[in-house]
Amino acid sequence: MALKGLLRASMAQVRVLNIDDSVHFYRDVLGLVEVGRAGDKVFFKGYDEFDHHTFAIRKADKPGLDFLAFKVSDNGYLDAFEAKTKAFGLPIETIAPNSDQPGYGKRLAVSLPNGHRIDLFVDVEQAKQTPGLHNPEVLPNGKLPVGCGCIAFDHALLFGPNSAQTVKYFREVLEMGLVEVLKAPDGNGDICSWLTGSNRPHDVAVLEFEQPGKVHHFAFKLEDWNHIGRCADFLTMNDVVIDAGPMRHGITRGYTIYFFDPSGNRVETFAGGYAYYPDMPTRVWDFDQVGKGIFYYSRRLQDNYLTVVT
Amino acid sequence: MALKGLLRASMAQVRVLNIDDSVHFYRDVLGLVEVGRAGDKVFFKGYDEFDHHTFAIRKADKPGLDFLAFKVSDNGYLDAFEAKTKAFGLPIETIAPNSDQPGYGKRLAVSLPNGHRIDLFVDVEQAKQTPGLHNPEVLPNGKLPVGCGCIAFDHALLFGPNSAQTVKYFREVLEMGLVEVLKAPDGNGDICSWLTGSNRPHDVAVLEFEQPGKVHHFAFKLEDWNHIGRCADFLTMNDVVIDAGPMRHGITRGYTIYFFDPSGNRVETFAGGYAYYPDMPTRVWDFDQVGKGIFYYSRRLQDNYLTVVT
Amino acid sequence: MALKGLLRASMAQVRVLNIDDSVHFYRDVLGLVEVGRAGDKVFFKGYDEFDHHTFAIRKADKPGLDFLAFKVSDNGYLDAFEAKTKAFGLPIETIAPNSDQPGYGKRLAVSLPNGHRIDLFVDVEQAKQTPGLHNPEVLPNGKLPVGCGCIAFDHALLFGPNSAQTVKYFREVLEMGLVEVLKAPDGNGDICSWLTGSNRPHDVAVLEFEQPGKVHHFAFKLEDWNHIGRCADFLTMNDVVIDAGPMRHGITRGYTIYFFDPSGNRVETFAGGYAYYPDMPTRVWDFDQVGKGIFYYSRRLQDNYLTVVT
Amino acid sequence: MALKGLLRASMAQVRVLNIDDSVHFYRDVLGLVEVGRAGDKVFFKGYDEFDHHTFAIRKADKPGLDFLAFKVSDNGYLDAFEAKTKAFGLPIETIAPNSDQPGYGKRLAVSLPNGHRIDLFVDVEQAKQTPGLHNPEVLPNGKLPVGCGCIAFDHALLFGPNSAQTVKYFREVLEMGLVEVLKAPDGNGDICSWLTGSNRPHDVAVLEFEQPGKVHHFAFKLEDWNHIGRCADFLTMNDVVIDAGPMRHGITRGYTIYFFDPSGNRVETFAGGYAYYPDMPTRVWDFDQVGKGIFYYSRRLQDNYLTVVT
Repeated sequence: MALKGLLRASMAQVRVLNIDDSVHFYRDVLGLVEVGRAGDKVFFKGYDEFDHHTFAIRKADKPGLDFLAFKVSDNGYLDAFEAKTKAFGLPIETIAPNSDQPGYGKRLAVSLPNGHRIDLFVDVEQAKQTPGLHNPEVLPNGKLPVGCGCIAFDHALLFGPNSAQTVKYFREVLEMGLVEVLKAPDGNGDICSWLTGSNRPHDVAVLEFEQPGKVHHFAFKLEDWNHIGRCADFLTMNDVVIDAGPMRHGITRGYTIYFFDPSGNRVETFAGGYAYYPDMPTRVWDFDQVGKGIFYYSRRLQDNYLTVVT
Repeated sequence: MALKGLLRASMAQVRVLNIDDSVHFYRDVLGLVEVGRAGDKVFFKGYDEFDHHTFAIRKADKPGLDFLAFKVSDNGYLDAFEAKTKAFGLPIETIAPNSDQPGYGKRLAVSLPNGHRIDLFVDVEQAKQTPGLHNPEVLPNGKLPVGCGCIAFDHALLFGPNSAQTVKYFREVLEMGLVEVLKAPDGNGDICSWLTGSNRPHDVAVLEFEQPGKVHHFAFKLEDWNHIGRCADFLTMNDVVIDAGPMRHGITRGYTIYFFDPSGNRVETFAGGYAYYPDMPTRVWDFDQVGKGIFYYSRRLQDNYLTVVT
Repeated sequence: MALKGLLRASMAQVRVLNIDDSVHFYRDVLGLVEVGRAGDKVFFKGYDEFDHHTFAIRKADKPGLDFLAFKVSDNGYLDAFEAKTKAFGLPIETIAPNSDQPGYGKRLAVSLPNGHRIDLFVDVEQAKQTPGLHNPEVLPNGKLPVGCGCIAFDHALLFGPNSAQTVKYFREVLEMGLVEVLKAPDGNGDICSWLTGSNRPHDVAVLEFEQPGKVHHFAFKLEDWNHIGRCADFLTMNDVVIDAGPMRHGITRGYTIYFFDPSGNRVETFAGGYAYYPDMPTRVWDFDQVGKGIFYYSRRLQDNYLTVVT
Repeated sequence: MALKGLLRASMAQVRVLNIDDSVHFYRDVLGLVEVGRAGDKVFFKGYDEFDHHTFAIRKADKPGLDFLAFKVSDNGYLDAFEAKTKAFGLPIETIAPNSDQPGYGKRLAVSLPNGHRIDLFVDVEQAKQTPGLHNPEVLPNGKLPVGCGCIAFDHALLFGPNSAQTVKYFREVLEMGLVEVLKAPDGNGDICSWLTGSNRPHDVAVLEFEQPGKVHHFAFKLEDWNHIGRCADFLTMNDVVIDAGPMRHGITRGYTIYFFDPSGNRVETFAGGYAYYPDMPTRVWDFDQVGKGIFYYSRRLQDNYLTVVT
């Protein structure tokens, strides 16, 4: 395949304070499918995904991101990534199949320089409820999506120190494309980088931040601007606090809404954005244009944008 | 990069009967940017593309497709494709840089078993008018697109004999993903296959047909269903004959309009469709469901669909 | 009020062959709210309407329209319409409150020259489930609409003889605006007229036809082109035969889908169209442009359009 | 006609500081058609309107609204409004045909209790460039709208004292419908009222404010949420400061963007909203829900909303 090695950001596990509220939020409001529960965790997927689950919540004392997992095309690449990660000098551990994520095969957990953990894996069981494969309807089983109708897990924005080294890892070891960058205030180097494994305008973004392992937001995919509007309606009718949007990013050109889950994690629903190819030049933003880059319509960085993280 | 080797169907040259009418159609109605002219040819690109040109028309006695070109990530892959093509047993020729396509480097022209020619290339100059790269607006130069506002060249559906062998070439040599297939009436083998190099639901489709080298349609990309509607309005107001749509395909789930250029070539504007990944199963259509697969809303294959080709 | 006298086409009763299939169709697929049942009838309303019910089905041996009812602003106008109807020479009968339509007050049933019956009324109970009136959400009770999510009853197209006299009645007695007309093939007079009581581009349309009392279609309202697309998806996924569309009318400029209920009645979902005001000139269509007027995109009158009626 | 008397808010004249900047803004960015100039004024209309002009700018030392004009169906109503206005006790003056607004017949200028002036008129010449009337395309002359593509003048929100008396005038003399109200903080009376003459959710709104004759915003109509998004893109690309939105109002349910013209007048582009009929109950908002009423998604009244007026 022309698309091989790292395929996509395909799963995240986040910490929540309360399971019931969170299930209501992710299942009934965002419209993810609840796949199952185990211990202090609940597993979900978007209606248009094939993997066993693509989102997990874990009950904990404080919110945040446990890890972001990337799917890899085959074990040849997984082995190569393991060797290259070690050569790069990052800690890497093997997680046994089905040990903490039902349906998942072996995962490699990498400790990134920015304090985040990412997992790499090839094998995962196919979900019971998937898009149709034989004379399929355009929606699984011909049913309308629930609530906001999130299609799939999409990406996350990771805050932490040593972002240059983290980006170097994503670029050199995982061979991701560098889609856009935001330059530092003094013009030396980038303070934020958007990276992808495919046509998606980003699978992950990395921002330089003092505290390690902080997540700014993780995002689920919607189809278009019209679905963004419907999602904003439904969030509001369900008393979800909308932090920003509906609006558009200058960076990626995506349509977006930011809001908070009941535990205070910032969540995004994201649609659109251009189709990236590796023969495209990286787009560059000056620091004084960050308002336009993130909040394309108001052109002002909202006060809490760089400070409220989990 | 995770996306390497064959990147995309990135250029096509088609035959037209009259240059002026065709320029009006492709530039003023579809909204492609006219890049330049040379001899009996005119070159165009979509407003959101970086390559020198992605569509060429050539004055000729009858309509049809001269060739479909695929961009390759680097010369290592191009050399490998050349060797594998020869090993596969297909004729392959080298076209010198700038010989017939201004701005293009070396191309390899492969004669497919279905009577079509495809070109493979790595190098092409960047267009003068591209999307912004430095604090960019969401549209190039902040200008609204012209007419139907076609974003980019998207794909083509090729008719011809020996489609199984042609698909085998796309799969084994060019390493494309097999996204969907339509089975033969007797259930033995496929009569149509949709193939991709990336997340696009198709870069090329191949249908078994008696006459070699026939093209059913080539397609340009639009953003979403709303743009499909606007495009239908604009086509109609410009007296373009709409053959089918606005509608949706069951296959790829894309939104679509089919219509004819002034020379009788069938053109499609296409939007949406799911994001394909190579870990997805191939979707399979039975022959008696072809109506639903192509004409999702009417569920009937329109009479001229399989017979009017150029 | 500036809007007084005849307010709108606000209710229709149609004949169906089977109650269960029809309830599934109108409630589960089109998304009307089932309000109640009485005898051989079932009553429905759109989720955004206030009247007790706005659509009724009645079990019968053959499909068709029993009557179309128009709401009138007050009894002063109702009395005036009664007197003017008698002066115009049309049969008019009084239907006692709650006799056949639960929740409805007195109605006047007028026999039109084209063989149709229309009812005029002022009083109807407010439905139990209405849009919110106190700090309301944008959707009733904050719930997403069901299925195609039809908002409200919209209009009907009535076929029958003596259409000129029928239009004269709508214009002179009910004081409706003449929004658009389709001229007869010989240019003498109109064979179809679109009439309204308000900003709606039509509450009723009247076409000259040999057989009296035939209905071409009745229509429910959707919000916009995107909802038309979603409706087409949902109809298809529920095996409803789509007769035409999604498309646009040149006449009224509305977005539209035509399809059939399980009894063979043609139903339309309709969105958009311009806002009519009585100071606007009537728009005129030549007969040879009827294709463009009705099927704006294909510009060809579909074969069954003038022949399949109930 | 069922729609008679006051038809709509159909024209406004506003004060601007600079003609050239304002013409660029209203013509090239918002997409109004420039109809002509006279003295210190420039006249515009939306592409889908029939009246000679529906918006005028006048060069002045400070921004603001000179007057809002309402079209009346016929001279019988105009005479009746004149008599009733005098009986109501408001100053009313006659403005001679063509004296200050080219193409306009006689107008009656009423001084409202809130310090605003409104004009009432029947006669106005038809514009040279109107929607088609004979086999029309869906857009005038088959041309795409310019810039944001504003369709028509829509409404204005007037600030000033004595709003209860002003509303009483709109209700009792001009017979407008009371669509929604915002109650005062102490629950006694309304501090804002939304009024209409037709199905539009508002032609004018009136808010209690200390200073007389202040305008909060005036609005132009767009087709739907997708056009609101395109408008936000185009405003941003033209460096227009977006004050709020794209978003939705709880009140009227309309989709909206607020922004400022080069003179500091707040302008709105507005789409959607339900179709009002006079048999609908008035919707009531408690003062502590005003955030949800105006800023449906953020549910917080933006700081400058009640203070920045012209």
